[in-house]
Amino acid sequence: MNGPAIVLVRPQLSENIGTAARAMLNCGLTDLRLVAPRPDWLQDRAFAAASGADRVLLAARAFETTEAAIADCQRVWASTARDRYMVKPVETPRQTAQSIRAALAEGQRAAVLFGPERTGLSNDDVVLADTVVSVPLNPDYSSLNLAQGVLIVGYEWYQVSDQAPVATMTKGTKDQASKEKLIGFFEHLERELDACGFLRVPGKRPGMVRNIRNMFQRANLTGQEVQTLHGMVHELVTYRKSKAE
Amino acid sequence: MNGPAIVLVRPQLSENIGTAARAMLNCGLTDLRLVAPRPDWLQDRAFAAASGADRVLLAARAFETTEAAIADCQRVWASTARDRYMVKPVETPRQTAQSIRAALAEGQRAAVLFGPERTGLSNDDVVLADTVVSVPLNPDYSSLNLAQGVLIVGYEWYQVSDQAPVATMTKGTKDQASKEKLIGFFEHLERELDACGFLRVPGKRPGMVRNIRNMFQRANLTGQEVQTLHGMVHELVTYRKSKAE
Repeated sequence: MNGPAIVLVRPQLSENIGTAARAMLNCGLTDLRLVAPRPDWLQDRAFAAASGADRVLLAARAFETTEAAIADCQRVWASTARDRYMVKPVETPRQTAQSIRAALAEGQRAAVLFGPERTGLSNDDVVLADTVVSVPLNPDYSSLNLAQGVLIVGYEWYQVSDQAPVATMTKGTKDQASKEKLIGFFEHLERELDACGFLRVPGKRPGMVRNIRNMFQRANLTGQEVQTLHGMVHELVTYRKSKAE
Repeated sequence: MNGPAIVLVRPQLSENIGTAARAMLNCGLTDLRLVAPRPDWLQDRAFAAASGADRVLLAARAFETTEAAIADCQRVWASTARDRYMVKPVETPRQTAQSIRAALAEGQRAAVLFGPERTGLSNDDVVLADTVVSVPLNPDYSSLNLAQGVLIVGYEWYQVSDQAPVATMTKGTKDQASKEKLIGFFEHLERELDACGFLRVPGKRPGMVRNIRNMFQRANLTGQEVQTLHGMVHELVTYRKSKAE
């Protein structure tokens, strides 16, 4: 699914266009539109800041006015931190992501406007949007730079557009140890802990054994790891015995 | 509620420390820790990039090692995009935000590690974490710059930081072991595994040590349990030595 267009209105610094392009590509967004950029915006500093997201910069389109930049869109959001004293719905980026998804699913085109670095969007630009999107942040220090604003909106978009399964471990755990293997290790360990006297107080033994089993239980061990633990205990004990002889 | 500490491991550029500080303050985070920063990191470029978040920079603490930086924490996350071929739980920033919130509600201290700009965290740093946090992004272009990684984690934290308490364990874990205690046990165990020859193949030692640390890391050990593990290893070894005499 194609995402929303990102519209940078009168961006002042080429670096910020580059970092915004990078943030877009991070989130699978590629439709970059610029309203009245400086004539020399597409310079080395933009590419350096884009850090490999060149294709977003090269495909960017420039427009003279915000109206022209959003002419083909049915739904437009205005990103702003300040209260504009307008009667207009406000959403969080998370809500906006859902709204954009719904709009695109209906075949509409969507855009999100971001204003110039220092001043943000003008009221005339905000008026062109259906909805304001405002990032909930520390009220005492809420100003984001341009690329960070793009990143938060893009990130939330990506989270709702991405239906891929989420990994729960850094490495597949098809090898997760069977309980039989795990209990085999428990028994090995407890045999050795009995032998060395660690479990020598009979009244405390059951509780200690339960606590020890719980620790290893929680570690979600793989079969390979259970083998490693067997080896550790075995070598500690074998070395002890060989010394004792 | 105070948030997690943000730990930047071997950051290379002062600007990036500044922009990370800005992203932190945006999200109400103020506990910045640096591992082995360049001696001159606190320079004008850092303040310029922090864009008003000076107090986060001025309160930042530097440590020589990652271990020292997280010594007072019970729960640590490692931010990484690459697969590390370790068996370790992985969360999205959204899940991590909930997990951090649960940990803090139980009186624990939490930290999130971010690696150097070019290389990311080393495997030895990832091993010190309980959980990996990985941002779901465009798989063809997923690398975030340092401040953007901090922003996403901080943003998700801010979104959950004002909700009602949640429980994640059947029993409170107020006694969750600090990383200092856990690492103390790792060192004790590895000393004994060296002594008995379990780690005798030099080429395999680093990987084996990482695997062993990961197993115990995943178990979310309490301080009492770490004491029990010390006792187990100590008694196995003491018995061995007494036999050997």
